Amino acid sequence: DPTAPRAAMDSRVSLSILTVPGQANPFGTLHGGVMLRMADECGAVSALRHVGRGQVTTAAMDSMTFLCPVYVGERVEIVAEVAHVGRTSIETRIEIYAEALQHPGRRKVGSGYALYVALDDEGKRPHEVPPLLSVTEADRIRDEAAAERQAVRLARREEARRHSREFL
Amino acid sequence: DPTAPRAAMDSRVSLSILTVPGQANPFGTLHGGVMLRMADECGAVSALRHVGRGQVTTAAMDSMTFLCPVYVGERVEIVAEVAHVGRTSIETRIEIYAEALQHPGRRKVGSGYALYVALDDEGKRPHEVPPLLSVTEADRIRDEAAAERQAVRLARREEARRHSREFL
Amino acid sequence: DPTAPRAAMDSRVSLSILTVPGQANPFGTLHGGVMLRMADECGAVSALRHVGRGQVTTAAMDSMTFLCPVYVGERVEIVAEVAHVGRTSIETRIEIYAEALQHPGRRKVGSGYALYVALDDEGKRPHEVPPLLSVTEADRIRDEAAAERQAVRLARREEARRHSREFL
Amino acid sequence: DPTAPRAAMDSRVSLSILTVPGQANPFGTLHGGVMLRMADECGAVSALRHVGRGQVTTAAMDSMTFLCPVYVGERVEIVAEVAHVGRTSIETRIEIYAEALQHPGRRKVGSGYALYVALDDEGKRPHEVPPLLSVTEADRIRDEAAAERQAVRLARREEARRHSREFL
Amino acid sequence: DPTAPRAAMDSRVSLSILTVPGQANPFGTLHGGVMLRMADECGAVSALRHVGRGQVTTAAMDSMTFLCPVYVGERVEIVAEVAHVGRTSIETRIEIYAEALQHPGRRKVGSGYALYVALDDEGKRPHEVPPLLSVTEADRIRDEAAAERQAVRLARREEARRHSREFL
Amino acid sequence: DPTAPRAAMDSRVSLSILTVPGQANPFGTLHGGVMLRMADECGAVSALRHVGRGQVTTAAMDSMTFLCPVYVGERVEIVAEVAHVGRTSIETRIEIYAEALQHPGRRKVGSGYALYVALDDEGKRPHEVPPLLSVTEADRIRDEAAAERQAVRLARREEARRHSREFL
Repeated sequence: DPTAPRAAMDSRVSLSILTVPGQANPFGTLHGGVMLRMADECGAVSALRHVGRGQVTTAAMDSMTFLCPVYVGERVEIVAEVAHVGRTSIETRIEIYAEALQHPGRRKVGSGYALYVALDDEGKRPHEVPPLLSVTEADRIRDEAAAERQAVRLARREEARRHSREFL
Repeated sequence: DPTAPRAAMDSRVSLSILTVPGQANPFGTLHGGVMLRMADECGAVSALRHVGRGQVTTAAMDSMTFLCPVYVGERVEIVAEVAHVGRTSIETRIEIYAEALQHPGRRKVGSGYALYVALDDEGKRPHEVPPLLSVTEADRIRDEAAAERQAVRLARREEARRHSREFL
Repeated sequence: DPTAPRAAMDSRVSLSILTVPGQANPFGTLHGGVMLRMADECGAVSALRHVGRGQVTTAAMDSMTFLCPVYVGERVEIVAEVAHVGRTSIETRIEIYAEALQHPGRRKVGSGYALYVALDDEGKRPHEVPPLLSVTEADRIRDEAAAERQAVRLARREEARRHSREFL
Repeated sequence: DPTAPRAAMDSRVSLSILTVPGQANPFGTLHGGVMLRMADECGAVSALRHVGRGQVTTAAMDSMTFLCPVYVGERVEIVAEVAHVGRTSIETRIEIYAEALQHPGRRKVGSGYALYVALDDEGKRPHEVPPLLSVTEADRIRDEAAAERQAVRLARREEARRHSREFL
Repeated sequence: DPTAPRAAMDSRVSLSILTVPGQANPFGTLHGGVMLRMADECGAVSALRHVGRGQVTTAAMDSMTFLCPVYVGERVEIVAEVAHVGRTSIETRIEIYAEALQHPGRRKVGSGYALYVALDDEGKRPHEVPPLLSVTEADRIRDEAAAERQAVRLARREEARRHSREFL
Repeated sequence: DPTAPRAAMDSRVSLSILTVPGQANPFGTLHGGVMLRMADECGAVSALRHVGRGQVTTAAMDSMTFLCPVYVGERVEIVAEVAHVGRTSIETRIEIYAEALQHPGRRKVGSGYALYVALDDEGKRPHEVPPLLSVTEADRIRDEAAAERQAVRLARREEARRHSREFL
């Protein structure tokens, strides 16, 4: 049933790579863009699992925060799960971890939110997505925080459109 | 003089590529992560130009908003310039444009902010950055908006640290 | 009107990247082939803009000259515009620039010509291209230089065909 | 003995790859730039073999001519050998072949010349290179053709320098 | 204590990626080599975790079996853990899984063994590795199977050396 | 005639690349996975040449042995030819060589076997392959060795299937 609510945890998905010298920035440490790219991929898969059909497209990479540097040669792991859903949009929470090769024990190196829009199989038209299960008090707090993030996001979206006429 | 204020415009820099099939997502359109990676690169160069020495590291990719899809084979152009500076941090505004090969005329496809920290030549220690020139009324409005973004950003940073103990 | 002459400047297009360690040659400096690949891409887009429809295919990379080395981590910019057109071919002039990250101010590092053939939408058959606007004395000089380049090019093409039976 | 003449054939070297979809241009056929990059690599190795020490850097990709299209999935083979040497420069002849996977039998798809400069181990300073063995009448004809190419090349080099002040 | 036996499970490590069109073979399905490359990376990290210091180098990719095809766009996960150790060598068991994006539920698509040699920090000299904990009857069976694999491997190694003089 | 026996030598094919820093492992030497990927590609082309139509898919990378390390910047060459054929499968022998840029003279760095299955043009269904010419006493010895490898391979395949229920 595509209209039945689904649990956030069912959308959880991870990606993990061994970082190599070719991914270094000119300073020799890991290119932040490598993690942003993986984070977007991982969030997209998580959103797609919640929706269960069609395609998704990235609408915003929201406030991805990096807590500490990552070194080339470390294993990087990204974990994402759905944090909120709108009528046709899915917000995912994304966490980034790193660990040295010889001394296992991952440390958190970043986290943030990304918003996706659900599209039909041809990628043309948005379609409705299943609601997110919200039962406990923790779920209610989660939903309130999501509403605040969405308010900031809409303001930024408005600004992005407006600047089209002014900047550059 | 590394302490003299510098104009935002002096940090403006652009990157532009021709997107190829190898950068498509599984649905055949351009991978959002490709643009995030380029946006981070472009913002980092802009920040580095403002600072004028040492290295920079990405602290946050802030609210990058995508306004419309990009197709494989289009030319993508990223433009960045410094929007605000803190004591050791540099916030850059990043704009993303796309244009079809045969029908020039770029359209805006995204924009957002990224925050960088200035480091010394070895990438170990943050150091102070030159202030941003702020003279006109428009500059004052720009600075106020930046202060609001920074407030949101600090809250998200706090949240990112906190979740380390709870999530996953 | 696909038969109306078009100005060279209308075909001008640029590509620009931040070079990374993964693009270094075994000696640690930028791989010349990275620039050749970008130059070909940029010239092809310029040619396509002049033609305005169908596809283009590279017929020759003509005398690309490198004036000085480029270092990994520099920003490389390629600019191309149409320099001459034949019945179904388009010759583009390509310029290559580099600049250090922290000390803006690009220097010219190379330039040359590439020849493309205009094909239909399926890439099967050459088709006629719009003429290049030629009005001023400078345009006349430009056209004469192009005729000389074309003479050299045809001799090389003849040689390329001939060697097929002899070499290797 | 680094000053003893060396035979052209001793510098012959080949590279060969299986082309994959990620190397296609936006039209679905093989990116010309992929072949230019390989051609430059192959020419550089050939030049290095003649010199026998230090590094080489690309000075010009001279008149690379493409005779027919290459399809993704074909095997591409590049062969290079030294065609002429100056005091500190090495000119290599480069041939490009392609063959379908299931129906072996390579066809020539392009050829041309590239010029390299011999540098010391640090890549800073040009140094003298061994002469090319020239004994037979065929060698004499080869040397004359090389002299003509060098004359064209020097004119283009002069033009590349000159345009620095005018174009763009 | 570097000579104390270690449990196989402590070396377990996984890598996982979202496969993209650029990794397809000419037939449009996932390139087997993409999985082999990831399998080798994953096995190497597992071996390194067991050893706990220095480097490792691949000595053999042993009998990697693919059970069913993988499609571009699927998530591929590799899991490795140490299966046996010699004096300076580490054998890892590697498993490969795939799952569709929208219909989670991974299926096994391959498995095999790879052998690594432990080297010092400079990668020059082999050094001794900690033994593998072997306590239960299951461990004993595991060790016997490993001895059989090693016998086949040594025969193949001998053959690899011998053919050097005969083949090609 | 697709049922006529074919000589092993007719399927011989080679691939060769110049290894670059972007292909280094975290320790700075060549990633073993780079060679495994090329070996699989080369073996697949060889198998396809024997079959002469349709597609092939990798069934197993069998006992690839690495004899000595390869350094970034060396030229790597892979050679493959068919070693045995079953009803719908093709086993190829693969050899890997490396040589320094400035001091030609390749050394063998690895060898092994890979098994492929012949599929129809759509990649759906296995189909029969031409037999391998077997005439001389050397051919008979080759066939016996292949039968032994196939016995080991089938046991491993059985094990791969079995572990699906037990491991991980």
